[in-house]
Amino acid sequence: MIAEHERQLLEEKLVQAQHILNECDLDLWMLVASESDVMGDPTFPLVVGTSVTWPSAFLLTRHGDRIALVGTGDVENVRQLGTWHRVIGYVERFGQPLRDLLDELHPQTIGVNYSKDNPLADGIPHGFFLYLQDILADTPYWERVISAEPVVMRLRSRKSPEELRRMRQAVATTCEIWQTLHAWLRPGLSECDIAAFLHAEVQRRGLTTAWDARYCPTVTAGPNSPIGHTGPTDIVLEPGQLLAIDFGVRQDGYCSDMQRTFYVLAPGESAPPQPVQEAFELVAQTIAQAAAALRPGVAGWEVDQVARECFARAGVEPWAFALGHQVGRAVHDGGCLLGPRWERYGQQPFYTVEPGHVYTLELGLSVPGYGRVSLEEEVLVTETGCEFLAPPQRELLLVPSAHA
Amino acid sequence: MIAEHERQLLEEKLVQAQHILNECDLDLWMLVASESDVMGDPTFPLVVGTSVTWPSAFLLTRHGDRIALVGTGDVENVRQLGTWHRVIGYVERFGQPLRDLLDELHPQTIGVNYSKDNPLADGIPHGFFLYLQDILADTPYWERVISAEPVVMRLRSRKSPEELRRMRQAVATTCEIWQTLHAWLRPGLSECDIAAFLHAEVQRRGLTTAWDARYCPTVTAGPNSPIGHTGPTDIVLEPGQLLAIDFGVRQDGYCSDMQRTFYVLAPGESAPPQPVQEAFELVAQTIAQAAAALRPGVAGWEVDQVARECFARAGVEPWAFALGHQVGRAVHDGGCLLGPRWERYGQQPFYTVEPGHVYTLELGLSVPGYGRVSLEEEVLVTETGCEFLAPPQRELLLVPSAHA
Repeated sequence: MIAEHERQLLEEKLVQAQHILNECDLDLWMLVASESDVMGDPTFPLVVGTSVTWPSAFLLTRHGDRIALVGTGDVENVRQLGTWHRVIGYVERFGQPLRDLLDELHPQTIGVNYSKDNPLADGIPHGFFLYLQDILADTPYWERVISAEPVVMRLRSRKSPEELRRMRQAVATTCEIWQTLHAWLRPGLSECDIAAFLHAEVQRRGLTTAWDARYCPTVTAGPNSPIGHTGPTDIVLEPGQLLAIDFGVRQDGYCSDMQRTFYVLAPGESAPPQPVQEAFELVAQTIAQAAAALRPGVAGWEVDQVARECFARAGVEPWAFALGHQVGRAVHDGGCLLGPRWERYGQQPFYTVEPGHVYTLELGLSVPGYGRVSLEEEVLVTETGCEFLAPPQRELLLVPSAHA
Repeated sequence: MIAEHERQLLEEKLVQAQHILNECDLDLWMLVASESDVMGDPTFPLVVGTSVTWPSAFLLTRHGDRIALVGTGDVENVRQLGTWHRVIGYVERFGQPLRDLLDELHPQTIGVNYSKDNPLADGIPHGFFLYLQDILADTPYWERVISAEPVVMRLRSRKSPEELRRMRQAVATTCEIWQTLHAWLRPGLSECDIAAFLHAEVQRRGLTTAWDARYCPTVTAGPNSPIGHTGPTDIVLEPGQLLAIDFGVRQDGYCSDMQRTFYVLAPGESAPPQPVQEAFELVAQTIAQAAAALRPGVAGWEVDQVARECFARAGVEPWAFALGHQVGRAVHDGGCLLGPRWERYGQQPFYTVEPGHVYTLELGLSVPGYGRVSLEEEVLVTETGCEFLAPPQRELLLVPSAHA
């Protein structure tokens, strides 16, 4: 059976979805999938809440109809959710009952989850799309099929109260783990040691990492560690080096995504050397300036540009990725992106920031001879600006050169 | 870093894939994905072995070229795999370097993972397909794009030696758990109790369930339990009732999928009552007959039909799903299906059985007043027939009515 708090969250999002259908003037939203355990529309966890085996359709109308058409084997499973008012089972044919349902609902517009730009809104595999075309070819409905991207984006981006509670919880857990890590860190540890420590902290709490555990955490120790989404190596952390870690947890289905930077004091040092300190301040201040520019109504790229201008003023090469992405059930969640207007980001940087969005603000800088300074904070957009979900890192986290 | 045995398995499948490209007369196989953690082509774990963040392409040619085009952040990650000979990173644009690569390889046919019938071969989301079309519209390559379904099907279906080792291991673990369960079972347990016991056995071994833990295991106790992919309920197992369980584990990335049927003796009984016994024998014998018919060269539907004819001869209503599906990294794995020629199964029942395929043979029957008899075995197709991966259930597993 589904837990009551999970059912309530599904209900919260389904009510929100109906509201968004009306806002987007869309009659019917049709989610489809088959073997969703292996290739599941990323929207399923938000509004369906279970996996399905055979070709299945979940129909939500702007009037609040909620109808599921699933293989007989999945009927009980969907019924147990308690969120779908009608659950129809089929054995041999999926096409005819689907056409019958459309005849009953006679929608003028039908949203299906596909998007050129936004992987989180791109939930229908191409072959299933062709299959749907075969099914609907002789009906008036095929030409009414449009992309449901605007619905998916809004639904994913606008966090409901329970979603926000879970996201705050995941961030709080992550901060707790940062503290435990800081107390334990010492020179002589390898990147693999540090990753293993974080994995143990995650496991001890019965959680999982926010993304692929092979490179969550990403551990960058000293100046010779490879940059990017990369697994930890045998490189050993030494005195006089920076340590940057990118890490997050998934708790009750919601992710955190944060970066912290540590500096291991060299023997005799009581503070980081000037180039390290300056790099840290540039990164921290750039995040502060970006946060000051983040508010409802701005376009994603404008916030990214504010941050890039900070680097330009300092005469420093900027980072090669977006300043901020959304976070939610996915660690890189869909919708508006605080990113530059590069081809590969498509339309995402052009969308508008709204209250209730949760973004990362993240960027970094290599300091020759020392390693990398890299920070990532999470912020919630409010009515007038934004709020950090945890206190941002304002100073380098210092690690003594040797234990007493 | 990737473990050596994982690298070897990727290598095994990549070599096999090149062989299959030649067999299918396909010049280039192009796997693409973006944010593959949330919406990943199911073929990625087989031949790529990592997730990617930005739009990415993995190109494998019939001549053995292996080229990855990924965002700079993913370069190190893919390089560490050691299986892709060239790893090209990009920052702003994905389209131009992809076109350049195609100009270099000048393939006459380009296979992309989409399929109307087979979710496991349907790996490209529709929006990404449209994005690819935009990128290649002005090139000679777009019209050379075809479905790579034949490649994916063969590659998933033909188990390599290491894959077979893992599958045998998952089945052996499952049998071990069946035995532990049998020793513990007693009347008075609820379906939820039984599911919790199996989950604990899975967790104790550091494994996960083969499919969604909400309905793996599916526990059907007595005559009033709902049938299908459904979570366990509070229904309590009583003397004089059948208990059917559908369960599997995922071990080193490979799944098992089996069903066992137990009977709780009523006070005074020393054997199951006749209708229960007869139903069991019909199910077990039907599986035996299907196994006798399963050999290289037959079409999937023919094996299903042999089984359905057993039920027809007994005058019993047949089961409402395919007799057997393949198993592999996915519990319902792709390719040939031992299923009836129903619309919803598309072309899958028409494919041909080959040596090296692993199928389930599964079916069941309700016995009014007692519950459900349901069995599922796993078999490996050999050169001349098939081999059970574990001894099939030949007798009802008896549970005493009360503990001594």
